[in-house]
Amino acid sequence: MSSSPHPDTELKLATVARARTPFREKFAIPRQAALLQHTRASFDFTEPQHAREALRGLEAFSHLWVISWMHLAEDRGPSVRPPRLGGNARIGVWACRSPFRPNPIGLSLCRIVRVDADKGILEVAGLDLVDGSPIVDLKPFIPYADSAPEANGAWTAEGAPKALNVAFSVEAEAVVRASRIPALLASLREILGQDPRPAYHDDPERVYGVALYDWNIRFQVKGDSLLVIEMLRLD
Amino acid sequence: MSSSPHPDTELKLATVARARTPFREKFAIPRQAALLQHTRASFDFTEPQHAREALRGLEAFSHLWVISWMHLAEDRGPSVRPPRLGGNARIGVWACRSPFRPNPIGLSLCRIVRVDADKGILEVAGLDLVDGSPIVDLKPFIPYADSAPEANGAWTAEGAPKALNVAFSVEAEAVVRASRIPALLASLREILGQDPRPAYHDDPERVYGVALYDWNIRFQVKGDSLLVIEMLRLD
Repeated sequence: MSSSPHPDTELKLATVARARTPFREKFAIPRQAALLQHTRASFDFTEPQHAREALRGLEAFSHLWVISWMHLAEDRGPSVRPPRLGGNARIGVWACRSPFRPNPIGLSLCRIVRVDADKGILEVAGLDLVDGSPIVDLKPFIPYADSAPEANGAWTAEGAPKALNVAFSVEAEAVVRASRIPALLASLREILGQDPRPAYHDDPERVYGVALYDWNIRFQVKGDSLLVIEMLRLD
Repeated sequence: MSSSPHPDTELKLATVARARTPFREKFAIPRQAALLQHTRASFDFTEPQHAREALRGLEAFSHLWVISWMHLAEDRGPSVRPPRLGGNARIGVWACRSPFRPNPIGLSLCRIVRVDADKGILEVAGLDLVDGSPIVDLKPFIPYADSAPEANGAWTAEGAPKALNVAFSVEAEAVVRASRIPALLASLREILGQDPRPAYHDDPERVYGVALYDWNIRFQVKGDSLLVIEMLRLD
């Protein structure tokens, strides 16, 4: 965060914060994170004193762009096979939101839950990043500049698939109730309800595991119901 | 554009394209570029063969995010004084869209005018970047992920100010008519109509100059009318 001009010959980003999210692995992130209401994220700012000034005024806005560095992604070339299109069709990286791109820049629209500039605190809902992801910029959502109500979303236009019904075993529910994480049950319901299985898996006997919050959460899916079998504390 | 993973210790961006726009200087860029319909921008891709594959499928979308490196901006610290707020109020950089930020990442929503993947051609309307700006990512606008119809834009919510009436001297109009740039008259009208004067200038005698397309365009503003006096070809 120097005050020198930014050269255009070497484009180097500073990590201004790290995202704090419940998602311990890419696999756990719902495709439609914008729908998450109870799943919160916060930010560990690299320079807390800078953040206390830099956040001032953000409380007047309702939504925020979080621009990140998707450090777990890699560049797989100019085209990818999006799961949405059946995994077979190749599509250009400029025509999709795959994390596998020449520059791993992430763009996430979040709802602002809490801003306390004096304390350097920012909390949001809807952040689709793995815990620890480097943040490179934050920008308020400005309706006149950022809206396109007439936009055509092509094959992404179908909207959210129906959510799964999420149930918990007695043991799993006891773990949730013993936790002090606010709204944990509602958060797990909305995350798991978006079906974290890899695309095109449909084996009702198979037990999946996903690392969320402090647990490896093991579950099965039968029809439109997901059962959390157990929650194993992560090391 | 290697295929190695992206480390999170050193965040280095590749310039995937340079923006080609009519804006020869920052001063010339309208604050509400999203309203521009006749002012087109294109892209010189760094690796044309890569771009021909990477653009495939983008024609199905109507709008695009252009993520850029604002190479003419500098980091001026954690807070700025936005012209919109009178130039006196200090606001945090995370609470505004000023180009003066720790990382000079630009985020521009554009309308797609033309995609020809086979030729590596992309043309858009509404790009608010200085000609030659490095582009680091392109992403399709996806309504379910990128829309917040209920969003509160705080002090940016007032909408576009009334456009100025733009007139041309006989000499200036002759220059426009002799040009082969498509829709040049309409483009100059919509750019200049957004009033390129520095905030709070209101001197009807003063002659301003702004570098747009191939000209230094000299104009005066009286009330709600802007008169283009002359257009001097740039070297």
